[in-house]
Amino acid sequence: MAVMTGPALSGERFSVVYRIAASGPEALARARDICIEQTIEFPLALVPPGPIRDGIVGRVEELNEGDGTALATISYAVESAGVELTQFLNVVFGNTSLQPGVRVEGLDLPDALQVAFGGPRFGVAGLRALLGVPRRPLLCTALKPMGLGVAELAEVAYRFALGGIDLIKDDHGLADQPFAPFAERAERCAEAVRRANAETGLSCLYVPNVGAPADRLMRRARQARALGAGGLLVAPGLMGWDGMRALAADPAIGLPILCHPALLGGFIAAPDGGIAHGVLFGQLARLAGADATIYPNWGGRFAFSRAACLDIAQACRAPGPLPPIVPAPGGGMDLGRVPEMLAAYGNDVVLLIGGALHQQGPDLVGNCRRFRALAEAAAA
Amino acid sequence: MAVMTGPALSGERFSVVYRIAASGPEALARARDICIEQTIEFPLALVPPGPIRDGIVGRVEELNEGDGTALATISYAVESAGVELTQFLNVVFGNTSLQPGVRVEGLDLPDALQVAFGGPRFGVAGLRALLGVPRRPLLCTALKPMGLGVAELAEVAYRFALGGIDLIKDDHGLADQPFAPFAERAERCAEAVRRANAETGLSCLYVPNVGAPADRLMRRARQARALGAGGLLVAPGLMGWDGMRALAADPAIGLPILCHPALLGGFIAAPDGGIAHGVLFGQLARLAGADATIYPNWGGRFAFSRAACLDIAQACRAPGPLPPIVPAPGGGMDLGRVPEMLAAYGNDVVLLIGGALHQQGPDLVGNCRRFRALAEAAAA
Repeated sequence: MAVMTGPALSGERFSVVYRIAASGPEALARARDICIEQTIEFPLALVPPGPIRDGIVGRVEELNEGDGTALATISYAVESAGVELTQFLNVVFGNTSLQPGVRVEGLDLPDALQVAFGGPRFGVAGLRALLGVPRRPLLCTALKPMGLGVAELAEVAYRFALGGIDLIKDDHGLADQPFAPFAERAERCAEAVRRANAETGLSCLYVPNVGAPADRLMRRARQARALGAGGLLVAPGLMGWDGMRALAADPAIGLPILCHPALLGGFIAAPDGGIAHGVLFGQLARLAGADATIYPNWGGRFAFSRAACLDIAQACRAPGPLPPIVPAPGGGMDLGRVPEMLAAYGNDVVLLIGGALHQQGPDLVGNCRRFRALAEAAAA
Repeated sequence: MAVMTGPALSGERFSVVYRIAASGPEALARARDICIEQTIEFPLALVPPGPIRDGIVGRVEELNEGDGTALATISYAVESAGVELTQFLNVVFGNTSLQPGVRVEGLDLPDALQVAFGGPRFGVAGLRALLGVPRRPLLCTALKPMGLGVAELAEVAYRFALGGIDLIKDDHGLADQPFAPFAERAERCAEAVRRANAETGLSCLYVPNVGAPADRLMRRARQARALGAGGLLVAPGLMGWDGMRALAADPAIGLPILCHPALLGGFIAAPDGGIAHGVLFGQLARLAGADATIYPNWGGRFAFSRAACLDIAQACRAPGPLPPIVPAPGGGMDLGRVPEMLAAYGNDVVLLIGGALHQQGPDLVGNCRRFRALAEAAAA
């Protein structure tokens, strides 16, 4: 290795905004460390001038200080990500995620790179077209509790669909357990929803959870499609971000994707570490093919702030080459929260209400109709 | 849904120890919330007595308080995980990861469940047998920097192997970029290592990084095997924990796996959230098929404490039905740190030294020989 020739680079770069818990010269030093850690991970002194030193190594484009932290914008050659989402995430935050006091606050990708990753197949408009719902907020609920048999789940699905819910998803805890095996559940629930649709004239979609083993993920999703599923629930924290992207990209599947936040909480547990809510549940979900992104709304069972939730919604809709997607706030919402949510999010929202639909009383169909009436009134 | 019959359960349970940032009645209330959140996610009042309420819902087995936090041991029916690692992780921490002030501190799985997940194919003994190294510490280094071409990387690999390194891994930032495409790189580096082995009589293994798109992961790993790879570098934070498990389980691959911590840092960023180091990099890595687990050693470029590192090593070796695996501390280590590392870890360790091998001077082969001499002296 007498010379390090280094590659020919296009000059196209993407950038990441990191919040660094430091100021002054220390902030700049830490930003420069990130430039190396996320790329060559190699003593800079041993790299001669040339494309590696000048192009592959990250570049501090901007450093803005305030109240003891610094926002560093660092750019990377698009070639370092090699058009693979896994490697893109690796360049964004792979090793640096292991450092204390560094948080990803923003991503800025050239249009061509976003398009190369694929993004959502449907987005807001595509999902609305599938559901035949041009204007009003979309209604979603979940099949639960875990432990029910297939016949019971299918019966619940039937009643939800009869009551006018748009998207009936498996609870994310329904996988392939012995008490409700995936294939049987998907087939029976899809059939129940079809039967209800025939009665109502609506286009409710059944959205099974494809929490499959990695080597069976694509197969399970294709099977879901064959069995009549109208969408897929995917948790990238469990299946990998690229698992979701692959499901969205596969033309043999071709179903809308609801992104579930399970196991992603690690990234938001530290105020000065991890990945900002809007980037994680909004920007990344959209980039990786979600058509709607589920997250806990403020004031429910979880502790997301109103500002964090609105950041997510903003990232779902930000201008760009990929279709906008639908925020799907949930996590302990009930009918009483609907007006407030509509005021905050507007009509391009999936209102996800789970357990509370059962708590309204034993008449599930009636409970769903009340939910729907609220949404229809909002769009009137 | 007039009745909730609920499933027949075996009575076998696994348990999770959570540290909850609360005390007194609040700690117990939060523990009970976890029992529901991680399973039925449904109003408990609506669940009649029976297997769902009494078996599927998590059970607080123990609650120990101390200095403002509580350690809650919660058990779950093995059926809730359905013998899928993705769903197991979901039950352990799916939604609760999104709550503040809850940290996973331990996992306790019945032997049968551990075995069902597969675990490491080789472990310490198997890896030593492949390398022909019965006693001394194992030596590992990485091909870098990102941006080198295939011929340059192969030349570096050749020199490392000639110098007596046991495991030569791709830097985790080498994916399938245009400047060193995966297939060409794997083939040429494997060939270079074979050539060196023929000269030295040693059994150095080349370990390419299989950071592939989800739907090509298995194929890329099989291709790596066909091209002469001796192991696989896998980052479960990028590829999903189950991606690593699937690679370990596939008999058509049959290669030892080095687990890389990229993007897992989110889980350790908050002292009162996420997943404890020993569980994340030790217990989970072993359960999910790693034969060695890479993590940043204390006193390097990262901020892991000595105690956290020793917890990881302990989890690699804890008694159980799965083979023990090898801790692989790295992240800014140099030759000067070797005696201290051996004193702390013993001989069953992979010593991972990257950039510092280059900093010793331009004679890479000589630098590797010095590294090896240190390890041999330790085992003498």
